[in-house]
Amino acid sequence: MAEHNDFVVTPWEVSGEIDYEKLINDFGVDRITPELMKRLEGHTGTLHTLLRRGLFFAHRDLGWILDEYERGNPFYLYTGRGPSGHTHLGHLVPWMFTRWLQEKFGSKLLFQMTDDEKFLFNPGLSLEETNSFAYENALDVIALGFNPNKTEIFSDIDYCKTLYPLALGVAKKITYSTTKAVFGMRNDSNIGQIFFSSVQAVPAFLESVRQGRNIPCLIPHAIDQDPYFRVARDVLPRLGYFKPASIQGRFLPGLAEGGKMSASIPESAIFTTDTEKTAKKKVMNAFTGGQATVAEQKRLGANPDICPVYHYMTFLFEDDDTKLKEQYARCKAGELLCGEHKQILAEKVAAFLKSHQQKREKAKEKD
Amino acid sequence: MAEHNDFVVTPWEVSGEIDYEKLINDFGVDRITPELMKRLEGHTGTLHTLLRRGLFFAHRDLGWILDEYERGNPFYLYTGRGPSGHTHLGHLVPWMFTRWLQEKFGSKLLFQMTDDEKFLFNPGLSLEETNSFAYENALDVIALGFNPNKTEIFSDIDYCKTLYPLALGVAKKITYSTTKAVFGMRNDSNIGQIFFSSVQAVPAFLESVRQGRNIPCLIPHAIDQDPYFRVARDVLPRLGYFKPASIQGRFLPGLAEGGKMSASIPESAIFTTDTEKTAKKKVMNAFTGGQATVAEQKRLGANPDICPVYHYMTFLFEDDDTKLKEQYARCKAGELLCGEHKQILAEKVAAFLKSHQQKREKAKEKD
Repeated sequence: MAEHNDFVVTPWEVSGEIDYEKLINDFGVDRITPELMKRLEGHTGTLHTLLRRGLFFAHRDLGWILDEYERGNPFYLYTGRGPSGHTHLGHLVPWMFTRWLQEKFGSKLLFQMTDDEKFLFNPGLSLEETNSFAYENALDVIALGFNPNKTEIFSDIDYCKTLYPLALGVAKKITYSTTKAVFGMRNDSNIGQIFFSSVQAVPAFLESVRQGRNIPCLIPHAIDQDPYFRVARDVLPRLGYFKPASIQGRFLPGLAEGGKMSASIPESAIFTTDTEKTAKKKVMNAFTGGQATVAEQKRLGANPDICPVYHYMTFLFEDDDTKLKEQYARCKAGELLCGEHKQILAEKVAAFLKSHQQKREKAKEKD
Repeated sequence: MAEHNDFVVTPWEVSGEIDYEKLINDFGVDRITPELMKRLEGHTGTLHTLLRRGLFFAHRDLGWILDEYERGNPFYLYTGRGPSGHTHLGHLVPWMFTRWLQEKFGSKLLFQMTDDEKFLFNPGLSLEETNSFAYENALDVIALGFNPNKTEIFSDIDYCKTLYPLALGVAKKITYSTTKAVFGMRNDSNIGQIFFSSVQAVPAFLESVRQGRNIPCLIPHAIDQDPYFRVARDVLPRLGYFKPASIQGRFLPGLAEGGKMSASIPESAIFTTDTEKTAKKKVMNAFTGGQATVAEQKRLGANPDICPVYHYMTFLFEDDDTKLKEQYARCKAGELLCGEHKQILAEKVAAFLKSHQQKREKAKEKD
């Protein structure tokens, strides 16, 4: 957990203006160095946009994962989703990155839907609801084009026959003290919440259990989930397994003021189930780094660094570094006005949604 | 939990000389009154030895269970076993009583083997071991002659696909504070132990879930398990189910000095897997309420109240009240010497084991 005056990052809450430098320190993770990127590039040919732009920026033991890979000991990937609602574009960021890793390294992927967690941590959600969101969210995962022969998506509830006995082995090694220190568990926490970290640890060694030998595991994830995997890294060697490695990304900011994204402000995020019209409207209504009037903006320029429109381009919608730099410079210079910038983004978002929703519909047939 | 200077009764530890009067007070359970016994007898025709002799002595809501039964709303039975080792005669006591209830009331029985619990609470036991003891113990349950058409025996591990999602609903309603107060959970408790009480609550409403309507549940059990069902009684109405009722028994004393039974002293208990020879030897070596010499005993008499030999007769091996009273009187008067008394018991134990082990072998074929 990282709780500062101006921002909070826990597995259940991300708010405020996040200082990622502080997070590296809080969580004790390593920065992805230029050397490590070069080493990755040696295997992947090119670097994913999110790596090039420092949006996947931290890791644990990524060097070791590459050591093993180079020794002919490939890793599998594990990531997941807490299905508390519909998928928004922010969720897609680490999944797309994971898909890229799968493609480049030919890795098997375990994708965990923590419907148990979301039930336990959300007073207003029933297990039927979180389980149903797990299915809905899985459609988005499938739509992203993971290799169907190398990808397993499961919900904790649906797969608990396998997960629960393995979680017990983890749970036996985690004390209440640890969950207090790492997750901020308290006297009024429910006992399911306290138990849950053991369930999230299981996919980090599940493939080793299945194959009866230790297989390295790499977990791409948004950095708020790090506490879970820190605990897993502590426990797994005591059960005879490898520590899972991880590679950690930033959060796609929301569309509301200050880059806020909130479940209670649906306009602050674009959901994969939004109509093109709704999505466009959300983009056009987004907060920006612009000035109060066009005249002022032409004179003073705008601030792309705090602008969701610019961030959406950076994370998801402008792969071309030259074009992105150009947008940045023109925005700063007051040449690219917010209305125009939004218009470009809105078209890209709409095109993406159209294509994604088609694949999402097809995914329904598969299940 | 009941922790006194001279005795301790928790779901995981029973030691010292138990004052059952204090337990009634500690746990806040009700005594089975003569009126309630009469009411029971109205349905069962006769009273089970363990009831007549006050060895099943306390309850929660037994009157309500009979009210419902009389209104045409029959109950189901739920009991269980923590499979941390082989079955000994002490374990059979509540199971035999449960079998009698099943027979007299025609009730369905859910029998839970808490192999998860025993793994979590015993540092030295693996899940494979507790799961294997669950199977071994189930043979003893089957050998007792429950109605196979009305009895379901399951292990938590084997049946977790059904149990885990339901346990989550319970867990969401139990805080860490509650497990601290009721079970003495501490900072160094593992998170599986903390979670477990939610799993033991599930069979108390499982039949209601299955049938989609509320069905009364009666839990016969040794009184040490009461804390689990007290918590279940607190939570279940908040999930829309009945509070489970319970009927609670005393512990069969061990054969060692002071009626101690200990897993670390195998001579202190007779296991259903003991050979007749071993069992007889254990009886012949038992601690008794006798005097140091035969001469002294003939002169002063012995003390059956503290004597395991007498207690074994009372709980399991002498159904005839007149004969039991006679044994008691003759023992006190110095007429029945310990050697002779042991000899009678040893023969009865051996005969029981012979028959039980035959049924136990047959049970293997069924599974």
